[in-house]
Amino acid sequence: MSVLPTCDTLLLDLQDGVLTITLNRPHKRNAMNAALVGEMMAVFDSIAGTRDIRAVILQGSEQTFCSGGDISDMNAGGEASGPQSAIWHFNRSFGHLITRVNAAPQVVITLLQGAVLGGGFGLACVSDVAIADRQAQFALPETMLGIVPAQIAPFVVSRIGLTQARRLALLGERIDGVTAHELGIAHFLTDGWPAMEKRLKEVLAKVRQCAPGANALTKEIMLQVGVVEHEHLLDKAATAFSQSLEGKEGKEGTHAFLNKRKPNWAK
Amino acid sequence: MSVLPTCDTLLLDLQDGVLTITLNRPHKRNAMNAALVGEMMAVFDSIAGTRDIRAVILQGSEQTFCSGGDISDMNAGGEASGPQSAIWHFNRSFGHLITRVNAAPQVVITLLQGAVLGGGFGLACVSDVAIADRQAQFALPETMLGIVPAQIAPFVVSRIGLTQARRLALLGERIDGVTAHELGIAHFLTDGWPAMEKRLKEVLAKVRQCAPGANALTKEIMLQVGVVEHEHLLDKAATAFSQSLEGKEGKEGTHAFLNKRKPNWAK
Amino acid sequence: MSVLPTCDTLLLDLQDGVLTITLNRPHKRNAMNAALVGEMMAVFDSIAGTRDIRAVILQGSEQTFCSGGDISDMNAGGEASGPQSAIWHFNRSFGHLITRVNAAPQVVITLLQGAVLGGGFGLACVSDVAIADRQAQFALPETMLGIVPAQIAPFVVSRIGLTQARRLALLGERIDGVTAHELGIAHFLTDGWPAMEKRLKEVLAKVRQCAPGANALTKEIMLQVGVVEHEHLLDKAATAFSQSLEGKEGKEGTHAFLNKRKPNWAK
Repeated sequence: MSVLPTCDTLLLDLQDGVLTITLNRPHKRNAMNAALVGEMMAVFDSIAGTRDIRAVILQGSEQTFCSGGDISDMNAGGEASGPQSAIWHFNRSFGHLITRVNAAPQVVITLLQGAVLGGGFGLACVSDVAIADRQAQFALPETMLGIVPAQIAPFVVSRIGLTQARRLALLGERIDGVTAHELGIAHFLTDGWPAMEKRLKEVLAKVRQCAPGANALTKEIMLQVGVVEHEHLLDKAATAFSQSLEGKEGKEGTHAFLNKRKPNWAK
Repeated sequence: MSVLPTCDTLLLDLQDGVLTITLNRPHKRNAMNAALVGEMMAVFDSIAGTRDIRAVILQGSEQTFCSGGDISDMNAGGEASGPQSAIWHFNRSFGHLITRVNAAPQVVITLLQGAVLGGGFGLACVSDVAIADRQAQFALPETMLGIVPAQIAPFVVSRIGLTQARRLALLGERIDGVTAHELGIAHFLTDGWPAMEKRLKEVLAKVRQCAPGANALTKEIMLQVGVVEHEHLLDKAATAFSQSLEGKEGKEGTHAFLNKRKPNWAK
Repeated sequence: MSVLPTCDTLLLDLQDGVLTITLNRPHKRNAMNAALVGEMMAVFDSIAGTRDIRAVILQGSEQTFCSGGDISDMNAGGEASGPQSAIWHFNRSFGHLITRVNAAPQVVITLLQGAVLGGGFGLACVSDVAIADRQAQFALPETMLGIVPAQIAPFVVSRIGLTQARRLALLGERIDGVTAHELGIAHFLTDGWPAMEKRLKEVLAKVRQCAPGANALTKEIMLQVGVVEHEHLLDKAATAFSQSLEGKEGKEGTHAFLNKRKPNWAK
């Protein structure tokens, strides 16, 4: 397995096939600056090829998830705007990161407490499983600052549909975990850290029952819906199916099923 | 009207413009093998050209809908994998079937009791009206077997969105009718067979009020959203509109409306 | 600022950056005829270039929103059908109008009382914020008349997804405000006019906190999801971001934020 990069803005903890990434800029409520974006990208790059890490947990330090992009870093870019400017590249790098997290072969789980704002909202929107605390605060506050939730908006639309996305963004509306759960931003709603931790354990137990390679292939197919032409996607999916059935996991899984025992990845 | 094919794995019952198809492999909880897939395809082929059959009801024998693809049939395919293999074609045939059911000109109604697993889940996801029993069990259990919900995944994403689809598939999560209704897999939730039958009658009464040709055209337009370019789709839709208005149904329908009587298809 | 056109079928009221458009054909429950469609198109054309109008309210006269296309006008088109006919162009003009309202740079708010049928349902489906009265009645009754909800169907699918859209259209089902809110057609549910007016004021207060140019850009990005290729859309979004940050609004907004004062557009 590849080596995890050393990080200044993230805490990494790998245990039992589960990598926990903690956004660790508590003085900025874990706002994402260029360093953090670069480091998180490097972490996801380093684990893209392994199936030994089966789940990635994303959380923020000090019970708050992420307050968005670091606005002080943005101003550091100076006056130049447009495709060649530093600010353009900084903004674009968020989009690359969110796209990468979205497509990670692992099951990505977000633990949403405290502030889930702007870019933090965007990260929540690409997790396979999102667990939200009732008290968490979600918003796209960008247009209240005269700027645009540019890299984030497409992922919010994919997550909750155009109907709710346009309302939230154009009103700068702040919603709590209960509403985020109702809108489908989060899959599970919990009250306080012990309940969140309990739910996380249940989710991880389910992840362990599913074959990691099959999960990665399934996610890949799902992300291509609406992108790859329908019949062509089904052709590719049939190839994925036959390879999974005849591969190591499929042989083990169907054999275990017929013999009423657990497959080796579920032990 | 065309003749319905003779089937071994399906029971067919045509009454009063409503075709009921019962998946009839109770010893396998109505799992779909190659024979069943071929027969169901032949049934939908045979009714594609008629508007006299206005609704198709899909249900399973012995109060269980469908437990998915028949895994014993899959293993019969032998070791070869990839696009030329028997297993590739067997898997791909599911996708053809689900695509065909999705595009049937009739109103397709699924009665979801008992097991609604894998390919059965896929069929539920393409019905125009899905009625779920509270106790029904829905799941995509494939990755727990080391295989991929390959042909099904795209239809689940279309039905309930990427957000919920990725969660259900990657956790192999089992949900009941109540949750399936909340997620939008099913439109109506009922408790026990008499309630389901009552709801079915109400739905059929509504289907009979709608002109069959107009319904078929409407469904065709809706299935092209996101596939055909927006302005081009609206152009095609305007053609469908003017043809429907000037056609037999439109003349009868608007005439009946202005004369405050029922149109001939609603009698 | 451009001059608003004179209208016979619409009442226009511009106050404090908010344009209220009242569909005003009460004898037809505000059904849309060719004149109304043309006038509304002209209104949206005339305000497309201004950011001084920040919100548009769409409502119907006499506590009813809109009963759809005017069927008597349709019959006036005579017998000819197909792409060259008057009826084709009349139908197609709805689609142009709905597309235009959908893409308006302003925040479009619909007040949904009474009948919200056919084309009225379509208009509701493109509003950024929809407020529905509990008693409002929503339906796509077209196929009960033997015709097709042609220009409307794509917008309904975009609003509430294929799953619910196909059910509503193929059964001609009538739902009230409560269900419309549950399905996501409307964002807010109110009971009676005073409650609706109160909610409208709250929404407008939020609109005023958001920079109009940034809101327009955000909406533009969101409408391109699924239309423009993902990476290309994010490139364009980064350009929008850097221009907004370095533009008048971004400078004012970030400056106001760092100085803990309100930006000039929020006063």
